[in-house]
Amino acid sequence: MFDPTPILSGDRRALARLLTRIENGAPEAEAALAALFPHTGRAHTLGVTGPPGSGKSSLVNELAKALRARGQTVAIVAVDPSSPFTGGAILGDRIRMRDLSGDRGVFIRSMASRGALGGLARATSEVVTALDAAGFDKILIETIGAGQAEVEIARAAQTVLVVEAPGLGDDVQAIKAGILEIADVLVVNKADQPNADAAVRALRASLDLAHPAARHWTDGAHHHHAPHPDPLPAGEAIWIPPIVQTVAIQGKGVDELLEVIEKHRAHLQASGELARRERERLSHELETRLRDTLLAGLLARLGNGQLSAALERVLARELDPTTAARQLAERFKTQDSNSKLET
Amino acid sequence: MFDPTPILSGDRRALARLLTRIENGAPEAEAALAALFPHTGRAHTLGVTGPPGSGKSSLVNELAKALRARGQTVAIVAVDPSSPFTGGAILGDRIRMRDLSGDRGVFIRSMASRGALGGLARATSEVVTALDAAGFDKILIETIGAGQAEVEIARAAQTVLVVEAPGLGDDVQAIKAGILEIADVLVVNKADQPNADAAVRALRASLDLAHPAARHWTDGAHHHHAPHPDPLPAGEAIWIPPIVQTVAIQGKGVDELLEVIEKHRAHLQASGELARRERERLSHELETRLRDTLLAGLLARLGNGQLSAALERVLARELDPTTAARQLAERFKTQDSNSKLET
Repeated sequence: MFDPTPILSGDRRALARLLTRIENGAPEAEAALAALFPHTGRAHTLGVTGPPGSGKSSLVNELAKALRARGQTVAIVAVDPSSPFTGGAILGDRIRMRDLSGDRGVFIRSMASRGALGGLARATSEVVTALDAAGFDKILIETIGAGQAEVEIARAAQTVLVVEAPGLGDDVQAIKAGILEIADVLVVNKADQPNADAAVRALRASLDLAHPAARHWTDGAHHHHAPHPDPLPAGEAIWIPPIVQTVAIQGKGVDELLEVIEKHRAHLQASGELARRERERLSHELETRLRDTLLAGLLARLGNGQLSAALERVLARELDPTTAARQLAERFKTQDSNSKLET
Repeated sequence: MFDPTPILSGDRRALARLLTRIENGAPEAEAALAALFPHTGRAHTLGVTGPPGSGKSSLVNELAKALRARGQTVAIVAVDPSSPFTGGAILGDRIRMRDLSGDRGVFIRSMASRGALGGLARATSEVVTALDAAGFDKILIETIGAGQAEVEIARAAQTVLVVEAPGLGDDVQAIKAGILEIADVLVVNKADQPNADAAVRALRASLDLAHPAARHWTDGAHHHHAPHPDPLPAGEAIWIPPIVQTVAIQGKGVDELLEVIEKHRAHLQASGELARRERERLSHELETRLRDTLLAGLLARLGNGQLSAALERVLARELDPTTAARQLAERFKTQDSNSKLET
């Protein structure tokens, strides 16, 4: 029987031990997560994503420091889906350790996907569950890259920051079109570089395309901070992702960014969007777990024989994978429906 | 009933129509793929991946032209997992169209992931099945980016090319560590740039780390083309990913690259690695289809009521997602085991 008390009361070693079990897919982790789950839902989770070279790691460090200065506790989960095999620490852990080590209000964990992407998304979500139960005020989920994998992990957070930087090249600029639509806050980091203004303008143009309703708000300077000329009721206000400029390595713009982040959290709560996102996230999680459980159950009952017989027929091109899967699943169903009809 | 004859006999419009159905997840696609599957297994499939800015699209174009010059037919599937929502054509389709249009021996298809990553991987694999049955000699699967999503799509191919270019920055260099291990052929494109030699050296160093067995072969110049000093029997030879330098926009190095690609295909066949990869790919596909089928079957029988009741308990933090999934699946199993025991 798993005793959640140490983790709930802030025991860091018990927490670290559980996270290792989660990452290793250890069976004990499941009972632990079940016991911790009722104590979750309090943390503000932030996804931080953006292309390589945008300075995400430095920004996350500075955010953590600024949050600590305001008395909030911070957990950082640095996820690296692009490193499926090596599991190396390429997320600037050393820089982090120098600035933040020794502070018990900060907890840092790096994760690399050793196996499938699905496994990483699941482990990340379980790690966030544990950190939430452990009582951290803010959980920063940092992903490297800007692909679909990163997007899927980041969007599980309540507030999504997409970080850009000037001069990352046209291809990188093109990539961001896809992630713009999940951004709650856009950050142009390295804003002291000469071409920063061009990057902000390009981002604003893309943003206007992605949020056509906002187009008429974008004429004035600082349009992203300006209130809507004809304000909607607070509970229904539309959130237009603001663009915040930072120079993370000098700590510039970080306080402003933090203010915007808190505003977004308030918006989520007031508008009912927080509840909607939570429902979507947990519904997706429930479905994923169902898939895993059903497959494991079928495989345990079929035994290896029937599965490999089906695979041999697929390899011989006698049967396509979809039909083979349907036939295997059908045995399950037929048996079960018969039992229903007969009783 | 789906008649596969038009597609098998080269009807491009029938093929394009089927690919659209696959992308839309239309139910008719399933029967079509089942009918086409027995006619697959002949094409040589190539995955082409690498970071933005490496010039993958130009390289794929030049490869297609060189293959056409040798009388081979070519299909290009340009997959963009980083664009989950917009579905825009950011893969240089216009450049492609200019060079390759009007040639009936080339077929080009762009795919963006509109929904989940899993959906894109499935659709890509089904599109490749259709193209294989349609008789294309080479199928080039180009993915943008270098994240886990790209890796998962590229590794479904028989020969995986990882494209690099000089001067893409440290972050990009770091990313490649993860994808090096799936590379069969490494390409340094834009090899006319001044820092190309440094990129090749860095790649070679990473490669030596990734393939420690090859370390003693790397002393001489052109080590990657040199035969093993004490050659293994042809059937068991180890493949050390060669590094090929190209300048795609000038067509330089493309013939050499094609030779290496053909050598890899010959190696795959002689070593039995082709059969091993095929088994792994189809086994993975069968498992994925089983997951989908089982979930659909359970949901159809549970009805929405039981699922949403479980979701409400999860949202109320009374039950964690894993336990909820287990309970839902358990009803299935218990009914079924009882029926077995009783009869």
